[in-house]
Amino acid sequence: MNIVDIINKKRVGEELTKEELEFAFNGYLEGIIKDYQMSALLMAICIEDMTKEEIFSLVDIFIKSGEVLDLSALPGVKVDKHSTGGIGDKITLIVGPIVASCGVIVPKMSGRGLGYTGGTIDKLESIKGFKTSLSTNEFIKSLKEVGLAITGQTSNLCPLDKVIYALRDVTGTTASIPLIATSIMSKKIAGGADKILIDIKCGNGALINTTPDAMRLKKIMEEIGEYYGKTTICEISDMNIPLGSNIGNSLEVIEAMDVLKGKQGKLTDLAIKISSEMISVAKDISFDDARCEVLKVLENESAYNKFLEFVKNQGGDINSLKVSDIKEEIKSIRSGEVKAINALNIGKLSCSLGAGRINKEDKIDYEVGIVLNKLVGDRVEYGDTLFTLYKNNNKEITLNVEDYYEIN
Amino acid sequence: MNIVDIINKKRVGEELTKEELEFAFNGYLEGIIKDYQMSALLMAICIEDMTKEEIFSLVDIFIKSGEVLDLSALPGVKVDKHSTGGIGDKITLIVGPIVASCGVIVPKMSGRGLGYTGGTIDKLESIKGFKTSLSTNEFIKSLKEVGLAITGQTSNLCPLDKVIYALRDVTGTTASIPLIATSIMSKKIAGGADKILIDIKCGNGALINTTPDAMRLKKIMEEIGEYYGKTTICEISDMNIPLGSNIGNSLEVIEAMDVLKGKQGKLTDLAIKISSEMISVAKDISFDDARCEVLKVLENESAYNKFLEFVKNQGGDINSLKVSDIKEEIKSIRSGEVKAINALNIGKLSCSLGAGRINKEDKIDYEVGIVLNKLVGDRVEYGDTLFTLYKNNNKEITLNVEDYYEIN
Repeated sequence: MNIVDIINKKRVGEELTKEELEFAFNGYLEGIIKDYQMSALLMAICIEDMTKEEIFSLVDIFIKSGEVLDLSALPGVKVDKHSTGGIGDKITLIVGPIVASCGVIVPKMSGRGLGYTGGTIDKLESIKGFKTSLSTNEFIKSLKEVGLAITGQTSNLCPLDKVIYALRDVTGTTASIPLIATSIMSKKIAGGADKILIDIKCGNGALINTTPDAMRLKKIMEEIGEYYGKTTICEISDMNIPLGSNIGNSLEVIEAMDVLKGKQGKLTDLAIKISSEMISVAKDISFDDARCEVLKVLENESAYNKFLEFVKNQGGDINSLKVSDIKEEIKSIRSGEVKAINALNIGKLSCSLGAGRINKEDKIDYEVGIVLNKLVGDRVEYGDTLFTLYKNNNKEITLNVEDYYEIN
Repeated sequence: MNIVDIINKKRVGEELTKEELEFAFNGYLEGIIKDYQMSALLMAICIEDMTKEEIFSLVDIFIKSGEVLDLSALPGVKVDKHSTGGIGDKITLIVGPIVASCGVIVPKMSGRGLGYTGGTIDKLESIKGFKTSLSTNEFIKSLKEVGLAITGQTSNLCPLDKVIYALRDVTGTTASIPLIATSIMSKKIAGGADKILIDIKCGNGALINTTPDAMRLKKIMEEIGEYYGKTTICEISDMNIPLGSNIGNSLEVIEAMDVLKGKQGKLTDLAIKISSEMISVAKDISFDDARCEVLKVLENESAYNKFLEFVKNQGGDINSLKVSDIKEEIKSIRSGEVKAINALNIGKLSCSLGAGRINKEDKIDYEVGIVLNKLVGDRVEYGDTLFTLYKNNNKEITLNVEDYYEIN
């Protein structure tokens, strides 16, 4: 077998055999297939798509590239939650502590940034000392003690996904439904949870832009879950506007803490909905009963305390959280009501400030980002601050406000 | 501008601006854009195609990446010849000496292997001492003295093409008509010839597989030539069976010399046709008159002596030419007539013996290759040797003869 033949076969839209996929992907993990060959193959897959057979083969190859966690020693039903990601999506940081403080174990593998935004792992790394790569033993120990652990995939778990994910991020190959499904489901299955809840973000600020794409992703992921005997529930939620007010790494951790301390809004509403679903499926109780539990742990701050416990347990110093003190306020050039905020453009802007990656090797700047001072529905006067940039230098940014906010 | 945005734009089939193409391609030459990003962009271009505007922009970017040769100090009309390449295509090595010995200057820039086969430069490097990267001064000096010089692009000439060519070779992105046209025409224009003859090979053993593709390539290249004021004539010739008997690097140089010394066959016929066309366009005489000149320099061996002069002038020791003495003969398993020889499979086999490259860094083995002992139309008996492998080790090759020869 020859990698160029395999790439050419996919380029002209033919179906690859499991052996060919193994040759290419395992070869890449072993360093025999080069970065530039894998990125060409990934691009061909993005454009030419994959069959169901190919996707199932690839999920299997991804899972078998590493170990599969056995969490059966932990009590009760373990529920994992995943979001396909979008601008300002810090839901995991809110939902994890809520569900864990309701007594359900949340074993969570997360990723780094894909697209314009830092991933959950990047966000957590803005907390000094926070350890994002736990060994299997550390992961299980944390789950036993805290009920919640988040790790950037132990290096033994789906190592193939780790390298492919990093490559896709910087080669314009993130937008493939089969590759997204493979990446998520292989990690979820190898991660050992019994049930899986997936929050599919759909809109211009998300990996998935259209409803048909979201529906296809939902179908594929539920089928993969079923095949491996793990109940998988996919929710589809809107991502045409950023989620919450803060975009950036430290900034998003701070907003998650605000929500756990009682801040209201759409972000809070979504977090309550997803937490309730996870608890409902884990405890086999009604959604309304689950929701009551959620509201209780928010009100009595046990969810907030669970977050602090979780951070401390993984070595993080929450007092170290810092945002840049170089700010630039972007003012409105008209009066009216905020009709829309362009999540994609906000994401790109945040990335250009240093909060995301362009190249695989790029270092994220945890302290930069954007705070939206006005949200959709807010009344705005000429000259009001619409959003604030947190930057790492004094260079002034030239931008057209109307690319970000629609006001009339 | 951001390379990931540019890749994504092409991935969804949108037209790139000249500024975006400059950002990506010049950035790659400068090392800012990475291998894996460029290969993803090239794959998106392969599948999503390029508009005429994009192609003209890219040709211009390629030309401006280096210097443009001024050959006006040399007497007469300078004619460059190029083949899009195919299995066993050593036409340049035959045509160059013929045309030069008829008094027409042939300034020739050639490439390394693209696809399964070594390029003209690889073939010439099988001659010990042969210098394949001439400086501009050396190139012009050689043209003045010998009338023929072949160089693997002086490093100042279309340096962008050089790096893109090497990357395409190992990433399954050779088969794009716009990229082929850009690569060829930018080099030809920067190379300084007045008139350009292109031999477009079409068939399963060539970069171009179908007649519509060949026709499109012809049209694009003639348009580019016209735009730059260089008469460009494109011939389309068959490449469903290998050209000549020998495939491999040393082996092809040897066959070229055999033709110059009088060996007959289809390869010789094609070389005479192309030489005649070049001389006809350069001297502005009829094809028949040009053909008479060609036959004369073949008969009196002045073309063969020109070849020797050319090799010596570029530092090569023609007596150093060597083929491996580890041979394996592949026998026929039936009797009948040779109906077809699969050029693509012969090319792949030759590549797997070491005559071509899989990875960019791979070293070619000049001494290996294949000699076709039976050609299309030949009568074959059971047990006759169909073709002979020249290998660099004693490992036996397992193959199915019927993948290579159709006999009945």
